[in-house]
Amino acid sequence: MNATSSQRDPAKMEKIVSLCKRRGFIFQSSEIYGGLNGAWDYGPLGVELKRNIKDYWWRCMTQLRDDVVGMDGAILMNRAVWKASGHETTFSDPMVDCKTCKRRFRADQLDSIECGQRPSKTPSTCGGELTEPRAFNLMFKTYVGPIEDDSSLTYLRPETAQAIFAQFKTVLEVSRKKLPFGIAQIGKAFRNEINPRNFTFRSREFEQMELEFFVQPDKGFEWLEYWKEERLRWYEAIGIPRARIRVLTVPDESRAFYSKGTYDLEYEFPFGIQELEGIAYRTDYDLKRHQECSGKPLEYFDEETRTKYIPHVVEPSAGVDRTVLAILCEAYAEEEVKDEGGKSEMRTVLRFHPRVAPVKCGVFPLLKNKPELVVKAHEVRDLLRPLMTVFYDDAGAIGRRYRRQDEAGTPFGVTIDFETLGEKGAEWKDTVTLRDRDSMKQERVPIPTLPERLLSRIR
Amino acid sequence: MNATSSQRDPAKMEKIVSLCKRRGFIFQSSEIYGGLNGAWDYGPLGVELKRNIKDYWWRCMTQLRDDVVGMDGAILMNRAVWKASGHETTFSDPMVDCKTCKRRFRADQLDSIECGQRPSKTPSTCGGELTEPRAFNLMFKTYVGPIEDDSSLTYLRPETAQAIFAQFKTVLEVSRKKLPFGIAQIGKAFRNEINPRNFTFRSREFEQMELEFFVQPDKGFEWLEYWKEERLRWYEAIGIPRARIRVLTVPDESRAFYSKGTYDLEYEFPFGIQELEGIAYRTDYDLKRHQECSGKPLEYFDEETRTKYIPHVVEPSAGVDRTVLAILCEAYAEEEVKDEGGKSEMRTVLRFHPRVAPVKCGVFPLLKNKPELVVKAHEVRDLLRPLMTVFYDDAGAIGRRYRRQDEAGTPFGVTIDFETLGEKGAEWKDTVTLRDRDSMKQERVPIPTLPERLLSRIR
Repeated sequence: MNATSSQRDPAKMEKIVSLCKRRGFIFQSSEIYGGLNGAWDYGPLGVELKRNIKDYWWRCMTQLRDDVVGMDGAILMNRAVWKASGHETTFSDPMVDCKTCKRRFRADQLDSIECGQRPSKTPSTCGGELTEPRAFNLMFKTYVGPIEDDSSLTYLRPETAQAIFAQFKTVLEVSRKKLPFGIAQIGKAFRNEINPRNFTFRSREFEQMELEFFVQPDKGFEWLEYWKEERLRWYEAIGIPRARIRVLTVPDESRAFYSKGTYDLEYEFPFGIQELEGIAYRTDYDLKRHQECSGKPLEYFDEETRTKYIPHVVEPSAGVDRTVLAILCEAYAEEEVKDEGGKSEMRTVLRFHPRVAPVKCGVFPLLKNKPELVVKAHEVRDLLRPLMTVFYDDAGAIGRRYRRQDEAGTPFGVTIDFETLGEKGAEWKDTVTLRDRDSMKQERVPIPTLPERLLSRIR
Repeated sequence: MNATSSQRDPAKMEKIVSLCKRRGFIFQSSEIYGGLNGAWDYGPLGVELKRNIKDYWWRCMTQLRDDVVGMDGAILMNRAVWKASGHETTFSDPMVDCKTCKRRFRADQLDSIECGQRPSKTPSTCGGELTEPRAFNLMFKTYVGPIEDDSSLTYLRPETAQAIFAQFKTVLEVSRKKLPFGIAQIGKAFRNEINPRNFTFRSREFEQMELEFFVQPDKGFEWLEYWKEERLRWYEAIGIPRARIRVLTVPDESRAFYSKGTYDLEYEFPFGIQELEGIAYRTDYDLKRHQECSGKPLEYFDEETRTKYIPHVVEPSAGVDRTVLAILCEAYAEEEVKDEGGKSEMRTVLRFHPRVAPVKCGVFPLLKNKPELVVKAHEVRDLLRPLMTVFYDDAGAIGRRYRRQDEAGTPFGVTIDFETLGEKGAEWKDTVTLRDRDSMKQERVPIPTLPERLLSRIR
C-alpha cells in the first residue's frame, strides 16, 4: 500500500514539526552549522518520550517474559558479518553519475538518462550525459585501526538484527534457554539514504527495537501470527489504537527471497501511509548463512525431538523514531475551548497515553509570591517526583500554565491554592485541584491520595 | 597517577573476563568471525546491569532535579562541529609508518625510529626505516550522501558533549531555564584507538554519560566542588564506596589548556588505577568557539545582573562501560562456604548493590515435578515481576540454583517449599524462604510482604 495524495495533510505535518521544535521534542542535528541532512536531535521532552517508548518495549518484550532475553551489541562489527548477511553485495540503490557535472542521482527517481533534461526531484541543471546505473551501497563505510585499506574497512550497522544472529549460540548457552526463545535488542542503525525525508521518518541515523524469536522449523507461521497480534496489542497500549494500524500481508513478489511470510504494520502519517514495523518469518536463512560463512556450528539440539537443526526465526522489527513520530501524530489535536473568562480560544494538545508522556504531572502553586503556597507546592513536587517525572511551574497565569502542559502532553496537573492551605475551610485543607489534560475537568483530591491515583493511570 | 605493577592483579582480571563471558555479561563483538578489536557486546545480564546504571544516572542527574534537562543528539553531526571544537586538528596520536613494510605504529610507544630495531609493544619485525612522526586523528571518518569527497566527509562523534554545546541555545529556550542549569546526555562515542586494551576499559566504541552544567562566570570553581561531591555520592549509591575512589586534582601542566580546574575520579582496577570520570571546569571555551565558528549568538542574558555573557561550564563526564567494569570488579568475590551437607566449597559471588543488580530476585520451586509447588512458584513470580526483574529457575538442586544466582549477582532468592503449601503446619502456609545473597541467611516471610520488603532495598 503506497501513500496516496488524498491521505496527505502537509499542513498538519508542518504544525507538528513546528511544535516539535518550539517545545523541544525534536530538532535538526548541528542546527547552528546548517544541520546534517537526515540526522536529528531529541530535546528535553523528546528524549523522555523516546525513553518511555523504549523502556516499555523492553519491559514487554524481555523483562515480563520467560522466553526472551536481551542483548546490546556494538555498532561496529567485523565486516565478515555484512558479507554473510548479503548487505555488502545487495544492500544498495541504483545510482547514475553525470559525466559533466559529476553529480550523482538515484536512477529510479530520474525520468531521463540525460542530466537535467526531464522533470525530476534532483536539482541538477547541467544537461550532461549520465552513466549507466550502478549499485550504490547504503552502508556507511569507515576504517578501523591506523591504516585505511581493504583489510580495515567496515560499516556502521544498517540494522541491529545481525548482532543477534552472530551471537545466537553464545546467548543460547549463557541463558540456558530452550526453543522457542528470543533475543531482543534496542540500538542505533545507519543507512546512507540518498534522499532522507518526511521529518524523522526516513533518516540516516535511527534507532531500532528488534526481536529475533527462534522456533522449531515447523512452527514459523504459528509464531508469525502470534507476534502480529502481540505487537498490535503493544501499539494499543502506548496510544495507537488497533483500528489506526493497517496490517499489510506483504505479497510474494514484494517479500525478501528468504521470507516465507511478512506483515507490515502501517500507520497513516500526515505524509502518507507508511511502515511502522515489519514482522517477518525469515526461516533459517540468517543463521544458515552465518554458519556457512563463519564455519561455526549454529545448530540447536532439540531434547524433545532428539534432533539437531538450525532454528527458524520470526522477527518483529520496529523503528523507535517512527514510533515516536506516529505517537506525536496520533496525539496531536487542536480544539476550541473556553478560557477562564468564558472566551473561546484554540488550544493545541498532545493527547499522549500517560504511560509514554514525557512529563506525567505538572505542579503549580497558584501564586509564586505567596510563600505558604510555594512551600506546599514543593512538598507535593517532592512527594511525586520519586515516582514519576514532574514539572514544576510557577510562571504566569494558571490558565497559561495549563496550556503549556497541554502542548507538552502532560496528562495531569496539580494546583496548590488557598483551599490547600485551609484558608477556605478546614474541610479543604491539604486538598489540591487535579486537572485532567483531555477532559480539562478539575476535581478536588487529598494530597496523600495523589501518588496511587496517578500511578494507577501511568503504569 | 599512573597504574603501577604493585597494584595489578591480572589473575583476578582474567577471572572476571571469564565470568563475564560464561555468564553472559560481556563478550567480543562478532566473535564467530574472530571479533573486532575494541568492540564489545553486552549479553542478557550485562545489558540489564548497564541499563540500571544508565537509568540511575538519568534519574539522579535529570529527573530528580529542577536544574537539569536531558537531550539525545545524533552520532553523526556536521563536520563544522569538529572543526570548531578543535577535534579535527588536535585530537590525534603521533604515528610513524615503516617505509618498507608499510605498518603503522604509535610514535610514543616505540623506542626507536627504525622499524623493529628496539624492544617495543608493536609486532613489527621488518627492520625498515620509519617516517617522521605525524598526527593520526582518532576520529572515525565516514561520508554522508552519495559522493565521497571532502564536502561529504564527517566523523563518528568522539564525545557526546559537543552536541550539547551546539544545541545549548535551543535547549535553553525551549526549557525556559535560568542559570545555573545543565543539559545531560547518554550516548555512544567512538575513538579509533591504536591499541584498545584492558577488556572494555579502552575500547573503540563506548558509551558516555555527560552533563554540561552552565553557570555564571564567577561561579565555576564553586560548582566544580559541588559536582565532585555529588558524583562521589552517586558512585557510593551504586556500590562503589567513596574510599575506593581516588580524587586526583589534575595538575596545571596536565590539564587541557581551556580548563581552569579538573578532578579525575579514579578506581583501582585489577590492571591498575585508571580514570572513571573527569570533572572539568571548562570555562566558556566551548560555547565561545561555537559562537565564533557558527556566527550564531550563544550568549545568555542574565536577568539578575542585567548583563549578557557566555556561560561557563562544569562538566562531569563518566564512562558507562568503565562504570560497568568498576562495578563488576568491586562486586567480584570468591569465598569458602559450607554446602548443605557441611562440606567446604568455594563460591563465586557478585555483590552488586541491589539497585544495579541485573536480576533482583530468583524464584525457585523446591521441586519441579510437584505441580502444587510449581503453581505457587508461578504465583510468586507473577507477583514480583511487574515490580522488578525476576529469574525463575527450577533446574537442579536448590543449592546449585543459589550458586548460579550468586554468580549472576542476584541479591534475593525466594524458595517455595512444602511449608509454603501448608503441609508442615498451618502457621507456615503462604510463607517462603527468603535468602540473602551476601549473608546467605534465610528467613521465613509471608508472600504478601515480599514486594515491599524487596522494593525497599532495591529503590
